Amino acid sequence: MDSIYRFRLTISECEVDFLSSDLYNTYMKTISVSSRLSLVPSSPIRKLVPYAIAAKKEGVHVYHLNIGDPDIKTPQVMIDVLKKWDRNPIGYDQSQGNPDFLEALRWYYHKLGFTFLESKHIQVTTGGSEAISMAMFSVANAGDEVLTFEPLYTNYNSYAVVNGVVLKAITTSSDTGFHLPDRFVIEAAISSKTKAILICNPNNPTGTVYTKDEIRMLVDIAKTHGLFLLSDEVYREYTYDGRAHVSLLSYMQEIPDHAIVLDSMSKRYSLCGVRLGTLVTMNASILKGVLAIAQGRLSAGLIDQAIAATLVDVPDTYIEEVRDEYTKRRDVLYEGLKSIPGVTIPKPEGAFYSIVGLPVSDAEHFCQWLLTDFRDNNETLMIAPAAGFYATAGKGKNEVRIAYVLNTTSIARCVELLAKALSVYSKQV
Amino acid sequence: MDSIYRFRLTISECEVDFLSSDLYNTYMKTISVSSRLSLVPSSPIRKLVPYAIAAKKEGVHVYHLNIGDPDIKTPQVMIDVLKKWDRNPIGYDQSQGNPDFLEALRWYYHKLGFTFLESKHIQVTTGGSEAISMAMFSVANAGDEVLTFEPLYTNYNSYAVVNGVVLKAITTSSDTGFHLPDRFVIEAAISSKTKAILICNPNNPTGTVYTKDEIRMLVDIAKTHGLFLLSDEVYREYTYDGRAHVSLLSYMQEIPDHAIVLDSMSKRYSLCGVRLGTLVTMNASILKGVLAIAQGRLSAGLIDQAIAATLVDVPDTYIEEVRDEYTKRRDVLYEGLKSIPGVTIPKPEGAFYSIVGLPVSDAEHFCQWLLTDFRDNNETLMIAPAAGFYATAGKGKNEVRIAYVLNTTSIARCVELLAKALSVYSKQV
Repeated sequence: MDSIYRFRLTISECEVDFLSSDLYNTYMKTISVSSRLSLVPSSPIRKLVPYAIAAKKEGVHVYHLNIGDPDIKTPQVMIDVLKKWDRNPIGYDQSQGNPDFLEALRWYYHKLGFTFLESKHIQVTTGGSEAISMAMFSVANAGDEVLTFEPLYTNYNSYAVVNGVVLKAITTSSDTGFHLPDRFVIEAAISSKTKAILICNPNNPTGTVYTKDEIRMLVDIAKTHGLFLLSDEVYREYTYDGRAHVSLLSYMQEIPDHAIVLDSMSKRYSLCGVRLGTLVTMNASILKGVLAIAQGRLSAGLIDQAIAATLVDVPDTYIEEVRDEYTKRRDVLYEGLKSIPGVTIPKPEGAFYSIVGLPVSDAEHFCQWLLTDFRDNNETLMIAPAAGFYATAGKGKNEVRIAYVLNTTSIARCVELLAKALSVYSKQV
Repeated sequence: MDSIYRFRLTISECEVDFLSSDLYNTYMKTISVSSRLSLVPSSPIRKLVPYAIAAKKEGVHVYHLNIGDPDIKTPQVMIDVLKKWDRNPIGYDQSQGNPDFLEALRWYYHKLGFTFLESKHIQVTTGGSEAISMAMFSVANAGDEVLTFEPLYTNYNSYAVVNGVVLKAITTSSDTGFHLPDRFVIEAAISSKTKAILICNPNNPTGTVYTKDEIRMLVDIAKTHGLFLLSDEVYREYTYDGRAHVSLLSYMQEIPDHAIVLDSMSKRYSLCGVRLGTLVTMNASILKGVLAIAQGRLSAGLIDQAIAATLVDVPDTYIEEVRDEYTKRRDVLYEGLKSIPGVTIPKPEGAFYSIVGLPVSDAEHFCQWLLTDFRDNNETLMIAPAAGFYATAGKGKNEVRIAYVLNTTSIARCVELLAKALSVYSKQV
């Protein structure tokens, strides 16, 4: 073996190519993927999917509260676009976005009161995901920092890695409903490398809706420190108990170069499988740059944009009814979980998620155990361990994220299942 | 003014935040986008679009040979998916890809003879674009080099910048039909930073179809130097004069860790507006990594995948008819252009593009002039200046890319227009 080992070294050093093809094949140079590829985190939501599939194969009914893929119906007017389809071929659309869809988006933002926005301020993206990625690329060079708050939308982690950006997360606490810390705490986290602050409002995964004072504070910090302010407002319409949503769009004219709003059609119209979002800004350099990136990928989907362009025909009652439905679900979840000993849950203010503290030391193990071991009347539930929603290693070990995307009857049953499961689990572990 | 200037400096240095709000607004810190954003090239194809729009507003008919957006009909079986649509809501699909679509893709690759491929070797991407981007991220770290050949598919430039990768292009020549240079030329361009070789075969924008010897040579180079080999085979079916397409898939079992095939539905089924492609590899690390990236953007479009999954029902005659049609178009273009004095065009072997040398010193100016000044019977044509298809500055100045995506009558008329235009232009400039 020793001689073979030495032979290998020889080849590796001088890259000979006169070997016979057999030796050649045996000793061809090894190859490895980029080191950055292994840094892209796997989805903490989807990690447990194989266990759920196995449970279902056993005939177990699994309640899915693990992912924000709502059961709410897509507006019929959008489905009708498909039934009436008469375009052929299915060609590229424009790189900035389909003109009808852009006009519909302008109409939508005007309806919200932001009448200063024109379609030129909008870049259509392939899902909110692409808007996040484009924004990170645009505001920060590789190695620069983007400041955010954890628990955070887990895909911020993915896009930070993909764009070579360091995501620096300030930890927020269940005790304060995951609201923002004091200004000095945020300012202390700003370094010379910090280029932007990124928030999700209403927040996935915490359900927090930031107050006017909080948004004002971030605007002031962005001005003072010359930072971009990125506001992901995918759940804009879903705020509860009469709470107003304070959009960064309200401050966009005050800080036109700093403000970038990230948006998506997915949750607003139950269109998760239609991959469309927007990046909205008045910063001309950003708009020019993201259009160049958009040209690189040619266009967002033609059919998806034709569907979404009918948002102008979706009755206002649609959003109102969905909001009412989520409010009911939130109430059933919140009241139910509050009554389970050892469970902590701040009252969710918006979106359809909650970070819930459990009386367990390893929530990931508990979530897996729910799928592999726990059955009640041949049913169990799937929830997401919260550790993946933190950028800081070791955080969120006893927390889970619950998405209340099922009807109230199912939510009530899930609460019951969770209470029973925790009781059994505490005796076993 | 001097005192104000000094005051500014003071603010910038100590980041005071006790100023009155008026001064505050006046002196807030400046902000700039990431330097990398300005490096993303704007599309050379779409740059002239405003001039085309202006010409059309004047009532001029513009023949579009500038972009690979074919007029070929999408298979009816795919359009029928929309007419029969009954799913609601439109939820996320799976991150690797819709199971039916993955099965259809496996079926497709098996039909081509690559029966070793399983669906686990396939990552569904949002357009071929995402496959290119994922591949670059996966094989190279920021600052690493990917070797390719120019003229090149212009969006390789975009994705290189987005992924912080240095695209090193070896120039190929019209004289050799843009075929690959000798092995020693390619090997001389490999540095310690080189991680991969990227080809487009059949080639956009040159129409070159690489021979078996050329692909074999690249496989050997990849083995010898421990490089990834990325083959973009979007135009696989479109080779002419009985020429065989030599897919990298033929060598995938020989170099399972090195080979990555990039693919798209756009041109095969005239589905450009359906944003779907694939990344195919047997390298488990790559597959794991790209799935993690894919989870970050959740899924490709649900409706688009439902459409594309019916590829199993597209009759073989569809591709054959399309190939015949492109062959006719190619013939009309090639014979026509050959007869224009000073025009050089190697006979296109595949895809539906050609890099054409013109007797002009500044093809970009000429292409713009066609749109702004040249009219014949109130018609003109739009073609793409080729400089944007080179990574090397200064190359391709007297070349254009022509996409033969119109019917033969229109192509013949375009040849006539080009001949007339060159004659007029030569007297004016």
